[in-house]
Amino acid sequence: MKKTIYASAQEAEAAFYDAFGKSDLEAMMAVWADDDEIYCIHPAGPRISGVENVRESWRRFFTNGQMLSFQLHARHEVHGMMIAIHSVYEQITVAGEGPARNPMLATNIYLRTDRGWRMVAHHASPAPAVPASRSTAQTEPKRAPKTLH
Amino acid sequence: MKKTIYASAQEAEAAFYDAFGKSDLEAMMAVWADDDEIYCIHPAGPRISGVENVRESWRRFFTNGQMLSFQLHARHEVHGMMIAIHSVYEQITVAGEGPARNPMLATNIYLRTDRGWRMVAHHASPAPAVPASRSTAQTEPKRAPKTLH
Repeated sequence: MKKTIYASAQEAEAAFYDAFGKSDLEAMMAVWADDDEIYCIHPAGPRISGVENVRESWRRFFTNGQMLSFQLHARHEVHGMMIAIHSVYEQITVAGEGPARNPMLATNIYLRTDRGWRMVAHHASPAPAVPASRSTAQTEPKRAPKTLH
Repeated sequence: MKKTIYASAQEAEAAFYDAFGKSDLEAMMAVWADDDEIYCIHPAGPRISGVENVRESWRRFFTNGQMLSFQLHARHEVHGMMIAIHSVYEQITVAGEGPARNPMLATNIYLRTDRGWRMVAHHASPAPAVPASRSTAQTEPKRAPKTLH
């Protein structure tokens, strides 16, 4: 088990997508809080909760060993002292193929634990399109986060 | 604008689904935090953020005035002092029709503001099935929430 301490939710998120792209199960689980309250919703899948079930879901996901790269767009952040909620569009490219036509939209939730920032929830689902920057009123370009409380 | 104060995330959630079912725009917006950081992801839709855009999305959603009822299943809660993250399966019934075949799975996030508990994020997406209670290891029956920090 890696002893990595993530000093911010941004660091934890970078590690999450790095592990995801490399199909690295140990690195992936090092991002998650070691708590049975954690949950993960893969696109169109059921809710999976608890460390063992979440680990098993990623193990299955990684079985084919595909290398993926993620371009994250239009990150939207809501910050508290102990929590960070990130919404991102994930544009996924499978190594050797072109980028997927449609992105996923993920809500990633991180808590500041006594072992640094860790993921407690990941909810991903298909989205219609990555919003253009300076896009319509319905979507948001990337901008600085604001602290709500 | 209603002056309702929700004393808990559970109360805010009950008001959210009540307003949703009744297509009541003012009651719906009274549940949301009055903050431009709020965001809403309707199933397969883009991320919509900010009070005005979220209001407009619900206004469109409610245009046909359909009465809906929601059965919520397998609520999973992660609680902090100032935040509550609820994941619920939504089994939706349109008045005059049978229940929808497949449920939605929602991540609902509430913050304790100086005007009570308010919703800051709603991410809903299609799910395969409502988990049976005492179900497989992949899903969770309803259980008591635990405070993480």
